[in-house]
This record gives sequence, structure tokens and C-alpha cells, in this order.
Amino acid sequence: MYQLGIVKRHIPRPAREDVQALAPFGVATLHEAMGRTGLMKPYMRPIYPAAQLCGPAVTVLLHPGDNWMLHVAAEQIQPGDVVVAAVTADCTDGFFGELLATSFRARGAIGLVIDGGVRDVRPLTEMRFPVWSRAIHAKGTIKATLGSVNVPVVCAGALVNPGDVVVADDDGVVVVPAAQAAQAAQAAAQREAAEAGKRAQLASGVLGLDMYAMRPALEKAGLKYID
Amino acid sequence: MYQLGIVKRHIPRPAREDVQALAPFGVATLHEAMGRTGLMKPYMRPIYPAAQLCGPAVTVLLHPGDNWMLHVAAEQIQPGDVVVAAVTADCTDGFFGELLATSFRARGAIGLVIDGGVRDVRPLTEMRFPVWSRAIHAKGTIKATLGSVNVPVVCAGALVNPGDVVVADDDGVVVVPAAQAAQAAQAAAQREAAEAGKRAQLASGVLGLDMYAMRPALEKAGLKYID
Amino acid sequence: MYQLGIVKRHIPRPAREDVQALAPFGVATLHEAMGRTGLMKPYMRPIYPAAQLCGPAVTVLLHPGDNWMLHVAAEQIQPGDVVVAAVTADCTDGFFGELLATSFRARGAIGLVIDGGVRDVRPLTEMRFPVWSRAIHAKGTIKATLGSVNVPVVCAGALVNPGDVVVADDDGVVVVPAAQAAQAAQAAAQREAAEAGKRAQLASGVLGLDMYAMRPALEKAGLKYID
Amino acid sequence: MYQLGIVKRHIPRPAREDVQALAPFGVATLHEAMGRTGLMKPYMRPIYPAAQLCGPAVTVLLHPGDNWMLHVAAEQIQPGDVVVAAVTADCTDGFFGELLATSFRARGAIGLVIDGGVRDVRPLTEMRFPVWSRAIHAKGTIKATLGSVNVPVVCAGALVNPGDVVVADDDGVVVVPAAQAAQAAQAAAQREAAEAGKRAQLASGVLGLDMYAMRPALEKAGLKYID
Amino acid sequence: MYQLGIVKRHIPRPAREDVQALAPFGVATLHEAMGRTGLMKPYMRPIYPAAQLCGPAVTVLLHPGDNWMLHVAAEQIQPGDVVVAAVTADCTDGFFGELLATSFRARGAIGLVIDGGVRDVRPLTEMRFPVWSRAIHAKGTIKATLGSVNVPVVCAGALVNPGDVVVADDDGVVVVPAAQAAQAAQAAAQREAAEAGKRAQLASGVLGLDMYAMRPALEKAGLKYID
Amino acid sequence: MYQLGIVKRHIPRPAREDVQALAPFGVATLHEAMGRTGLMKPYMRPIYPAAQLCGPAVTVLLHPGDNWMLHVAAEQIQPGDVVVAAVTADCTDGFFGELLATSFRARGAIGLVIDGGVRDVRPLTEMRFPVWSRAIHAKGTIKATLGSVNVPVVCAGALVNPGDVVVADDDGVVVVPAAQAAQAAQAAAQREAAEAGKRAQLASGVLGLDMYAMRPALEKAGLKYID
Repeated sequence: MYQLGIVKRHIPRPAREDVQALAPFGVATLHEAMGRTGLMKPYMRPIYPAAQLCGPAVTVLLHPGDNWMLHVAAEQIQPGDVVVAAVTADCTDGFFGELLATSFRARGAIGLVIDGGVRDVRPLTEMRFPVWSRAIHAKGTIKATLGSVNVPVVCAGALVNPGDVVVADDDGVVVVPAAQAAQAAQAAAQREAAEAGKRAQLASGVLGLDMYAMRPALEKAGLKYID
Repeated sequence: MYQLGIVKRHIPRPAREDVQALAPFGVATLHEAMGRTGLMKPYMRPIYPAAQLCGPAVTVLLHPGDNWMLHVAAEQIQPGDVVVAAVTADCTDGFFGELLATSFRARGAIGLVIDGGVRDVRPLTEMRFPVWSRAIHAKGTIKATLGSVNVPVVCAGALVNPGDVVVADDDGVVVVPAAQAAQAAQAAAQREAAEAGKRAQLASGVLGLDMYAMRPALEKAGLKYID
Repeated sequence: MYQLGIVKRHIPRPAREDVQALAPFGVATLHEAMGRTGLMKPYMRPIYPAAQLCGPAVTVLLHPGDNWMLHVAAEQIQPGDVVVAAVTADCTDGFFGELLATSFRARGAIGLVIDGGVRDVRPLTEMRFPVWSRAIHAKGTIKATLGSVNVPVVCAGALVNPGDVVVADDDGVVVVPAAQAAQAAQAAAQREAAEAGKRAQLASGVLGLDMYAMRPALEKAGLKYID
Repeated sequence: MYQLGIVKRHIPRPAREDVQALAPFGVATLHEAMGRTGLMKPYMRPIYPAAQLCGPAVTVLLHPGDNWMLHVAAEQIQPGDVVVAAVTADCTDGFFGELLATSFRARGAIGLVIDGGVRDVRPLTEMRFPVWSRAIHAKGTIKATLGSVNVPVVCAGALVNPGDVVVADDDGVVVVPAAQAAQAAQAAAQREAAEAGKRAQLASGVLGLDMYAMRPALEKAGLKYID
Repeated sequence: MYQLGIVKRHIPRPAREDVQALAPFGVATLHEAMGRTGLMKPYMRPIYPAAQLCGPAVTVLLHPGDNWMLHVAAEQIQPGDVVVAAVTADCTDGFFGELLATSFRARGAIGLVIDGGVRDVRPLTEMRFPVWSRAIHAKGTIKATLGSVNVPVVCAGALVNPGDVVVADDDGVVVVPAAQAAQAAQAAAQREAAEAGKRAQLASGVLGLDMYAMRPALEKAGLKYID
Repeated sequence: MYQLGIVKRHIPRPAREDVQALAPFGVATLHEAMGRTGLMKPYMRPIYPAAQLCGPAVTVLLHPGDNWMLHVAAEQIQPGDVVVAAVTADCTDGFFGELLATSFRARGAIGLVIDGGVRDVRPLTEMRFPVWSRAIHAKGTIKATLGSVNVPVVCAGALVNPGDVVVADDDGVVVVPAAQAAQAAQAAAQREAAEAGKRAQLASGVLGLDMYAMRPALEKAGLKYID
């Protein structure tokens, strides 16, 4: 599936307003709004609490222990982009640190999602450059083998096409396909609106059993109350 | 061992003063006070630092990917209770989030211990609703299969009977059987009293080797000092 | 390799100024300065954010579930030392807590690196006694079997000789052999100096591709740009 | 929950015919026959292929790195028993090997289920003494701390009471509570009988979709067939 | 990315001769022939040694703990197909066993690749129905939620489109995109031809250092021989 | 600790008779004979059952995803040697396969121990070339970065010096320092002799409790027998 040695310069980014429409929503809400799809694995964790981002993906395919393509990717970044880096095999090496973050930020990147390791966690935290990664490790990497930039990649179990919108927060990372961005934002807004009412009811002590009318189904399934 | 499709409405909660007597103690102290028993596995981590709780358990048995019984459990919560949720197989899905926390809190629950995933970590942190879980994941769950409420469960390696007192802090989670609550509190108090004196001695530079009179045993075991 | 039942009283600590020369540098920088060697595994994490330390190692070899030798090690601590504890088999028990930290601090220790579990995380955090560990667990340990103090140990995948300088921060833990301390500090300083210039260039928008003159090598390797 | 320092000499074993009635069934069938309960975690694997056993449990509670109680347990074994060993914290040390297997077999034990490590895999395989364990490791253990024999234990996530019937094969380990042995065997027999007919139909090319009449439910759920 | 509730009936299978052309090659060879791409994660293991298969993929998207779609998939199997099942979140439940294998075989399937658990390992081994899975577990699954059949899926880290050729052996699983089948077979044949000559040289004692002419590059990189 | 870019040509191998003296003993016995030291982690598993080896180590230090140094090591192999490969960071790539095995065997190597991945498991099994590894994975590696040959390495948690004797079987891998080879063999022989008598006693039904005279210590520790 992977094409190696390729850099795609022009990728279809979703309309800015579609990205902005997704930004207010959390990862859980968007995942639900897309029919419970699009999530990366739970091992992807932010390097500091309360980090969040929303932007179109510049994708990178790396080899284990080699971060050459992150430099190639830097040139393809446009303001507001999120770099999403996959690796051809599991690897926790520290592919990314403060210098690359400085470069990415200078190009307009708003964060990184990487299915590998990251280092310089303290400077990155001070810069408020958010990273979601599978590991934190100081291990250095080399620059020897070609991967690709802006090809479809599998990152932490999720397929990411260049231009897909990546949303990340304390709950993890979700990928919204570019073509579904507007629709997902709309569905998320509806879900949040519905949740506001539910939250108020639940806060007042109404049970989900009653609010969602679950009792008949539970009884039919055979639930027994005993003393 | 598990009984499925059952909700036990009346459970023997320990006396309020017995629960209060346990509240001042940390997980490590109580675990020691009970002869080094009662701990959950170390993968159970709080969603924010310095979280802590102490209260009787309302137990829930869930199936992987299904949070139906958490709604059933909400009705059985009494003020001060801790919900303890086990799953019939390892699963990191996000069984619990902000809406259920709102409902649980409205019923008086003071926190959740779940051998599965949790989501909405940021809102839960803002609400200060403490959760100890095996994972953080946005993955949604369904409501299709009966589990049980207030039956004995194995949660993160520990047997929890409904009404057992659950104590949790940054060190993890410990389960104090209801019948041992008073005795455990007493033993913990004695241990803490003894530790205060030891702490003072150690802080003044006295060695544990001398304070605990370990040197003869070490010598007998054959310890050699070389230069 | 391991010598059991031995305590070495006199270990060759590096000159104080060599230790101080290493202190300003991060783990990633020192690891690079030593040719990408000396790192512990990424599962070694600090118990609180922004912890850091730099000091010569007093090494301890423990058995699973047994912390006897930590008491023996306390006597060998000199001001500024870091205790480095290895275990003869994987174990997440809580070998170390507040009382031992009180004792270690009274002897002058500045922190602990342990390839096992730690407990009393909250008091340790309040004391600002930094610990890097493989786990947090309240599980108590016994005092039954001899290990050793100040013998060479393998801790989290890294060989540590007594007197080696241990540097730890949010990125993990690196071991600088005592004989290489001065040289490593010098190489780290050079690296940091070089990075300052690079950081400024990258911040101004210069690409790593150009700053590092990577384009010819990428072209030679066959990188294709497509639209 | 755990009682330490106790050996219960008389345990209620199920009737021999109830154990024999369970023996023909596989782990998956019995787990289904009990409403999908009773399974140990999937990390419990047999040390050689095609191992299987069925017998009442003599339970043992061990501490990490300490196999003292296995010797105490040997005395409590009756012909046909299975020893089930839990550990108070995760540990992969080699608690059990050829000598203990020789002793257990001499007492009539038919196998071991241990939530820890085992060693001497080759001699055990040659003896055809079956063991299900979480790890294979040569690491030796000590004899220093009291655990218990024939108390309820949590082994690999499953509660095991002394006398419960343990069934194990290539699919893992399932625990049948003594009181449910007869009923579980009956339910398993019914399930197998029903499966024989289903197997024949499926082998002839009939689809599960039709045999189980799933099509209406799938259609109602909204399944779409496209070309 | 995932489309839920969809069954695609007609998928583009590669020409039979293209599949046959791939069959003689091992997973490692094909992975190399495709530029080191297409591999599933190493946790995917065969249930018995020396299993192997090569065939076009019928893809299935499952939810954790739910195997409904495997029944739907059975109808879409054509002789020689391999069923490839992905799950929307990590799950080790036993989605597949003897009955489904009987049905799949009756439809012509030659094996299963599943990023979840499998059960009935002994009967499957006796049937010689090969399965590569992430776990072996007896845990039963339900039939409640729609997934999809013959949509693109991510299975164990690899993107699989329906009709892609899946090749599996003791080394794991590799996915050959349908459009690259012929080319991959050709490249693999060339690689094997080249390896035959290399094998003979190496067997005669010629060193890889000389056969691959590595000495100059090693010297240039600075390799030092010392005594 | 690691020296990079170095190949040591002459290493002190133990006397042939010392190696031969170790060969009859299992890993568990030798580990015990050395005071319970020298074991590699339990994740190191043989690629086929009943594999075993005993020989002096030629050590190799690799980088993640790079097997260049295995070719360099081949030249340093003498008949009877075991190659022991460590990696500077965790990596499951397939560093070794049939071609390298052919070369190693031609040079006289009797097996490989690698803290990384291996591929071509079926041909290696047919060749009866034994390998102990942390993973099986087809992932190819590159030849770009210098490591070292015959320097001290940490492999799967154990320090290995070139010339140390490596013994491996179904129980895992143990490292016998060259200087201790004769002594370890003697201690192992004594242990085996003692075990023969114990085995006979245990087989006759004598309990370990009596044979090891454990009852007084158990009673003193407070063990209670109840009915």
C-alpha cells in the first residue's frame, strides 16, 4: 500500500471554515458523530495535559530510527497544518524534538501526531507545541532511508490521507476524512446540543434509565432486581 | 462465579464512621495494615494528579464494549458511594464520560474505579470527578448485553464485594473488605503513629540499618563489606 | 556477572566539577554527545513533571519483592549521590516510599532511579524527592535476601557502574560513565552551542533541508516530488 | 480479601462423576455453557500443545518470588486435583519446575495452573505434566513468606475457590464453581449436541445467515448490500 | 475512513494466475519485493507451526466483542479467498472458532487473518484451517452491531483493500495490493534467484562483507579493528 | 558504556573443556549454580521447541532497524561460537534470516541470541539453526550505521562480555562469565547430583515439607492449619 520515495506537493485541504467548524469539538464527540470511527489507538498520549489541536494533515511515512522525512515534510507545511507521522514498524525512538518543532512552527504547523517517540518534552511543553506520541524517549535517529510525504499512511491504527482533519485532545486523536469534515461538524453540533439537555436532566437527578427509556429493554433482556 | 442479569438493591454498607476512619490513610498504608493484601494492579491510574477517594463500593459487571449496566448502577448509588466496574474481558473502550459522571454525581457518587477505558478526561478533571482506569480512550460503547450490579466482581485483579470500602490515591487502589474496615483503620493508625517516630529518626540521619537493627541479620546472611 | 552479598564502600566518584559540568544538559543532548549511547528504556518515567537530577550513582542490586539492600545502600550515600536500583527480575512492587526517601535525603541523596515500583507518590512529590521508575505501585516488599551495593548493575537496559553520572529529566535517564564525564560535558556544550545557531535559523523559516544541505542526498536516493 | 498464613485441610470437592462429566468438554464450550463467565486471561498458555486437564482446584496464594506455599500445598493434594496458584503481585519468576512436578504427581495432581512463571519446560513436557502459566522463566524463587493454601484466590483475573473445577486446554483455562459443575456439564452437553447439527449444516454449505435466521435483524439494523 | 453497515458484493479479485504466482514466496521475500512495505504487526501469529496461505482478501470490519459480520462475510467468500478481519478497537475475544471455520471452508475459504482472538484452536488445527490472530481466547462474542464487509480496513497496522492478496506463513502476514500482484511476484522471483547464488557462496564460507563488497563503506564510516 | 565503531578481533574464549562441561546442564540449573544470576528476560524465546546450545559469545551491538554489524560479526566467528546481538533501542525488526544463518553456520556458529526480531523461521527450523529472539517479524533492515563487534553488551537485560558462555534451552538464556565457567559447571553438577536423590524421594511420595525439613520454620512463621 505504501508508496516510498514520494513527496506530494499539492494536497486537497478542506475549506478553512470546515476545519474551524470542527475545532470546538472534542475527540469523543467527533468519533461518535462519525459513527464511532476514525480513532487512533489509546497508546497515543499528549506530552502535556490539556493540549488540543485541529487541522489538516500533512502525512509522513518514516522508517524505524530514521527521521529524514520529517525535514522533507517541513517544506510542505502550510499554516494551520498538523504533521502526522507513521512508521513502517513499531519504534519508540525520539524522532522529533525542539529543533524540528521550531522549524515546524516557523512554517505554521500547529502540532504533531507521531506513532513513535518524541524527546525534548520540557522545551516542547514550554513552547506549547503539542505532540501526541506512543512514547517519550531521548534516543536519536538517523537520516538514511527514503520514506514519503503526503501519501496515505496508517498511524496508530487509523488510516490518514493527506488533507484529512486531525483533532486531538486529552482523550486521544481522531481523523476526520476531508470529504466528511462539514458533515461531521454538523453531526457533532447536533450531538452536543442534545447532550446539553441530557446533562441538565442528569444533573437534576433524572436517571439515564428513565431519560433513555431503558427499562423495558432491560426487562425484556431478563434483568432481575433482588433484595 | 459471576451472576449475570442481576441487580442487588440492598447491600451491606459499612458504618459511616468506619468509612470515615479509613479516609485519612493512603493506599500503601492500608495495604500494609491488611497484611499486604487488597491491591488492584498497577495499571490502574488516576486521570488527574492528587485525586483521592474513600467510600463503599457499588459494583458493576460489564461486557467488553458495553456500558449498559453503568446506567443500571446509577440508580443503586447512595451518597458517598464509589462505583467499581469490572469487565468480563480486557477492554480499553471508553465506557464512561461526562454525562455519566454528571448522573453519578447527582446520585451522590464520589468517584469511579473501572477496569476499562474512560473518556472526556478534560471535563471530568474540571468537574473534579475522580476516575481510576486502565486506559483513556474516546471509543464509544453500546447497550446490548446484561451484566450485573452489586455482585462480587474481580476488578484489576482484586475481588470486590458490594459494600467493600475502596480507597484510591496517586499510588493506586486498595479494597478493604467491609467486615475489616474498623480493624484496618485501627491498624493503619497504629502504623502511621509508628511511622511518625521513624520518620523523625531517619530525617535526623539515623540509618534504617540501626533503627530496625538489621545489622546482625545481614551479617548472618553473609553480607560482606569490601573497600 | 552479578556479585551477590557485597557492599563496596569506596567507589570512584568523578570530580565534583565534572558532575556540575554535566548538570546543565538534558538527557537527549548527553545521549547524543556520547554517540547515542547510555539511555535507559523509555518505560522509566519521573513521578512528577519537570523533575531533574545529575549526580554519581550508588548502585543497588535488589531481588523481586525485596528492598533490604536499599537500607544497606543508605549508609553508602554521600551528598549529591543518586541511588540507582536494579532488580534481578522484572518486578513492579513498591520498593521505595516516603520513609526511605526521608532517610536518603538525610544522607544527601538527590534522587532515585529504580527499575521497579515506587509508592507514596504524593508525599514524595510534596518533598520534591525525584524518582524515575518503571511503575507506581503500593505493594509492600520484604527484607529476606542479600543483593549487593556498589557493584555494576543493569538498570532498565543500561549498564551502570558505581560512580557513573546519572542524568535524568522528563525525557528519561542517561548514564555517563565516570571516565567520560568531562568529555561528555564538553561534547554536550559544543552540541548546544551549535544548536543555538540552528534554532535561530529554523525559527526564521530556513528549512532543515537547506540548513543541513540535505537536498542532494535526497535526490541521489531517488526522492520524487509530484503534484 | 486474602487470608494469609492459613492452610485449609478439608475442602468440599465436587462429586467425582460431576468432574468426569465436565472432562469431555472444551474450555470454550464450558465458558459458553456458564453464560460466558469463568475464563482466565488469554495470557495463560499451556507449555506444550494439546495439553488438557479437568479436576478440582487446590488453591495456593504465593508472594512474588516465593514458592514456599507450593510445598505446603503438595500435602493437601488428592488424586485428580489441579493446583491453582495465584500471586499477590504480577511476577514471572519460575515458581515451579521438575522437582515440584515430581512431588505433585506422586500425590496425584494432574496439572498446574499458575499466574506466574514456570521452568524446566522440557522435562515437564517429557513427563507430560501439563502447566498453564503466564510466563516461562528459569528465575529461582525463595521460601521466606507465608501465603495460604485452599483460600479463595484471584488467578489470572478469575476467582477460584478451593474445590472449583478447573478445565484447561489449548484455548486457555476456565473455572467451574463446584456448585455449578453438574449444571454446567449438562448445559455443555446440550450445546455440543446442538452444535453437531449446526456443524453438519454449515459443512454442507448452508450459511449461518440462514441457519440462524439473521437476515431480518441485519436488514432492520440497516445493512446495505452494494455492488 | 470506515464505512459501516455496508456489504460490497463484487470486488475486483486479481487474476488467478497472479495469485498463484505469489504462492511460492515467503512473507519476508514478498515484503522485500515490495520495497519493505505491506507487513502486519509481529503480534499476528499462526495457531499452528508451518501454516501458510495465499489468496485474495474478503475484508470484514468488526466491533469489539461482536462477530456478527463474520457470518455476513461467509456469503461473500469465493473459493480460494482469505478472510481478513479488523476490529474498531483492540480486543482479544474469541470471534472465530470451529463452526465458523466449517462454514468458511464449505464456501471455499482457505484461512483467516484476524486482528482479534480465536478459539477452538485444537479442532482448527486438526481441520488444518490456518488462522493468524493477535490472541487465543475462549471468550464468546455477541451479534448486535453492524460492521461492514469488503470495505478497506486497517488490520494489525496494515491497510487491506478487498481483493488484495494476503500471504501468511510462520513469519507473519503481508498484504500485496491487487494491482501490484504480478509485479510483486516477478520481483520476488528475481530476489529468490539472486538469493540462490548468494546462499551457495555464503555456504561455501564467503563472507557477506566480501560478497556484498561492504568493506570500503565500513572503512569510510570509520570502523576500527582492534586486537 | 557502549563503544561504537569497534571490532575486537581477539577475545578470550574459555577453554573448550570448560564449555563442554557446561553443555549438559539446563538454563535453570546453571542460573541456580551461579547464585541466581545471569538470566536474560523471559521474552527471549526459541523459534522451535527443544532447541538448545552452549558456546562462547561473539557479541554484536546493533542499531534499531540496521543489521550491518551482523555481517561484520560473521568474520569473527570461530567454530562453536554463539552470536549474541544487542540493539541500542527496543526493536522487533527481522535483523536475521536464512542467508545470514547460512553464512554463520559456514563459519562454525552454532546459534544466535538476539534482542530483536528474526525472520525465515521455517527455513531456520528446517536447517536446525537455533535462534532465541524477542520477536518474529519479516521486516527488513538496512546497512547504514556502525555498531560494534566483541564489546560488552546488554542483551535482554543481561550483561554479556565477548567470550562469556551462553547457554540456552526451552527455559530461556543464561550467561556464564568466562572466568566462572569451570566453577559454574562444578556447582551445577553438584546441584544435579543432589537433585537426583531428591527426585527419587519426591517420586516416592515424600513431601518437600519433610525432605527439606520446612515444618518448624512454617510453624514459627505462624502457619495455621484449619479444617
